[in-house]
This record gives sequence, structure tokens and C-alpha cells, in this order.
Amino acid sequence: MTYCVGMLLNEGIVMLSDTRTNAGLDNISTFSKMFAIEREGDRALVLMTAGNLAITQAVWNLLQAGVWLNGSSQTLADVPDMFTAAQLVGAAVRQVAAMDSAALAAQGLGFDCSLLIGGQIAGGRPRLFLVYSAGNFIEATDDTPFLQIGEHKYGKPILDRVVTPQTTLVEGVALTLISMDSTIRSNLSVALPLDLSVVRVDQLRICTRRRITEDDAYYRTIRDGWSNALRDAYLGLPRPDFVLA
Amino acid sequence: MTYCVGMLLNEGIVMLSDTRTNAGLDNISTFSKMFAIEREGDRALVLMTAGNLAITQAVWNLLQAGVWLNGSSQTLADVPDMFTAAQLVGAAVRQVAAMDSAALAAQGLGFDCSLLIGGQIAGGRPRLFLVYSAGNFIEATDDTPFLQIGEHKYGKPILDRVVTPQTTLVEGVALTLISMDSTIRSNLSVALPLDLSVVRVDQLRICTRRRITEDDAYYRTIRDGWSNALRDAYLGLPRPDFVLA
Repeated sequence: MTYCVGMLLNEGIVMLSDTRTNAGLDNISTFSKMFAIEREGDRALVLMTAGNLAITQAVWNLLQAGVWLNGSSQTLADVPDMFTAAQLVGAAVRQVAAMDSAALAAQGLGFDCSLLIGGQIAGGRPRLFLVYSAGNFIEATDDTPFLQIGEHKYGKPILDRVVTPQTTLVEGVALTLISMDSTIRSNLSVALPLDLSVVRVDQLRICTRRRITEDDAYYRTIRDGWSNALRDAYLGLPRPDFVLA
Repeated sequence: MTYCVGMLLNEGIVMLSDTRTNAGLDNISTFSKMFAIEREGDRALVLMTAGNLAITQAVWNLLQAGVWLNGSSQTLADVPDMFTAAQLVGAAVRQVAAMDSAALAAQGLGFDCSLLIGGQIAGGRPRLFLVYSAGNFIEATDDTPFLQIGEHKYGKPILDRVVTPQTTLVEGVALTLISMDSTIRSNLSVALPLDLSVVRVDQLRICTRRRITEDDAYYRTIRDGWSNALRDAYLGLPRPDFVLA
């Protein structure tokens, strides 16, 4: 499994992914699911992937090598804007589907992948998209400023209640880590280390990149603090008076 | 969808279910998924169901009418102990599967149901079981004192962190309602009203039964209080110092 979460905030974009992959419970590995395309002053893009690793690695390779879109071969390093970047990711997904779907189906496997692409390209604003395995996509908006792929449920309640476009990048980082911690606590197939990237609006570079391991002091603070805070939150609530002795 | 949670605590058993059913997003109804078998001084059993409503209603009808098990027709009102009660639920599930599976498969539908059966029968201790659609079952233990069916993920993180066998019944009721609130907040197909039952150890009756609606003052306190408490818990955590300006 996988958990990746992206946030589109007024201050910029936060992207966080885990690194656990598994081909069955008895075959667990560590692969980064986060890929960056950065040219300072021109663009800062971050791609995160979930689903079949062979598919998502093929997509990432095609996005670097060139994918046919709108009459020319383009890469994420040269697309003119974020909408085209999302289209290009979708086109890459469709190209891999055309290559692999029949062979996967012959093995009884579906074509399973989903991707988050977020960032900013000079001349445009920061944008964040979720690309489905059909190659179509949706975009984060003020109403729903975060998007998730993979094991999204455990980490969603806190995001549902707190995240707004006014959330700062620093708060966004804390919230993505809390959301990830809830997921890791309840699903063994999501695990450290984590990859974090932050793109601040109009800087056109990835201002923070961090690999977060077991030894990361801040993550440990969040992990222990959130468990304690949840317990305290519960302890602070009133008890029902209708449970009969 | 559905969410039901049961807890096996030293003080007894807490059972909570929602009431929303849907045959597609455009066909939403309210059905109780909680059924009680009570004979004061002899037994107090509570059954909760998830999955295909036609299947689970058939199971409940068979459990009242009689299911063949160990050489005789038995009902939940006359099984001698909780283990036999769980076996009887499993036998009822298998009987419905024998009747309906082929016709469901012809419509492209699986045989989908799961049930929680908890309570106490005179001469034994309180026990809680989760019965699968194959009719086999597992039992809650001190290591894992709660069991869930249906949409279990959103409401699991708080339970993972707090519930132990030492949790009191009053705390257990608060925790099941918090867990349910997290689920309702994030999944439209789980909804009020709720059905709550509490079986206190060795009382051999259902000491508390309550239908919880939108107007329930305590539930409103939990709902608003938990959202605020989550926000406060998050606000009380430190912020990362590594996000660059």
C-alpha cells in the first residue's frame, strides 16, 4: 500500500509520501514514491505515485523521456503550465496502459495507479492535481485544498476538520505528518521513511526537501504528541450520564 | 455502507451501530442493524450486521426461527453458551449462502455480509465475536478488545490508541460515539440515528438501550467537542522548524 497527501495552500504546496511497497505481505521493500522536477526561477514540480510500482516507475520514466501530447513530445521539464503538466501525466498513464493492460489482465491483474502532481511553473499559480489510472484528473480547490492517494482513510478525519487554504505551510507540514502518523499507526503497509517537499508560492523552487526517518526528532514529537493529544482530547470530553449501573 | 463497533471490556460489552443503508447513492434508507435477544437472568445478546441487507435480514430471521446446528434446530434464545451463539450465526450465514449465492453470482454480486454477536449467557462470561460471510468467526481478546464491521477505518485510530479491557463502560460508550462520529464526518453512507446497547457483566440484561438521533444532547456534545478537541490537539503540537522561508 501507499499513502501520499498533497495540500494546496495560499502560501504554496506541501507534498508528503511514505516509501513502503509490497508484493504480498511477505515481500516488503522501500521505494521513494516522490519525484521532483526543479529549474530554479522557472518551475518546481513534485510528483507522487501510488499503485502498481511497475506502472508508476514506467510513468515516471516516460515523463522524463518524453510523452506525445498536443502534437509534440513533451516532458515535465518543458511543459508550459501546470494544466499541461497534469495532461502529460495522464498521457503517460495512458501510454503505459496501452503497453501493459492486456498482459496484466491476462494475469488477472487490473491496471492500478494514481498520482499527485503539484507545483508551480513561471507565469502561473501553484496548482495540485490527482491523476487517475484512466489518465483523467481532478484539481484541488479552495473548497477541498488537499488530495490523497493510496490508503487515505485513517489520516482523513484531522484533515477534514482543520485544513483550509489559509493554513500556513508550516502548519500544513505538521498536519500532513499527523495524517501520515495516523495511517502508519493503523496500516502496516504504510511506513517510514517519509519524503517531504514544500513549494512556496512564487519562489519557483522546492524550498524544503526532507527525508524523515525513525530518528527525525520532529516526527517523533508529532508521533508521541499526537497519540497523547488524542488521548487527552478524549479525556477532556464529558462522559454520558445515561449508562445505567 | 455501515459502521458497527463492539467492545469487550472487563465491565461488560458496548455495541453501537448506525442505521444508513443504500442501494446506490440515489437510494438511501434507514434500517436498524442491531438486534437484541434478552431474557433477564438468563441471557443478554446483541447482534449487529453489515453488508447486503437482504442477506443480513434473512440471517436474523433464521436465527429467530431456528438453524440446524449440532444435530438440532436452535435459536439465539436457546443456545447454551456464547460460543454456540457464534456458531449458530455462522450456520445461519451458511444457510443463506446456500440459498442465495448462485442467484447473486448470476447478477454479478458477491455474497457480502459480516456480523458482530456479543453478550453473556448464564454460566459463562461476556464474549464478543465477529462472524465473516464464510460463516467462520474470530473473538475479541484482551489484546484486541474491540471489533468493527463495515466502514471501519476512519474511526479506528482513536480506538487503537485508547481502548483496553480496563476501559469502563461509560468510557466505552464515549469512545464508540467518537469513533462513529469520525466515520460519519468522512463517509456519507454512514449516518444517524444510532443504536446503542450496553451489557454489564453478570447482570444478564441489556442495562442501557438508546436510539441516538440528531437531537441527542450528549451526541451533540461529543460531535462538537471532538471536532474542537482534535483542532486543539493539533494546535497544541509543536510546529516544524525546518520549513524554509
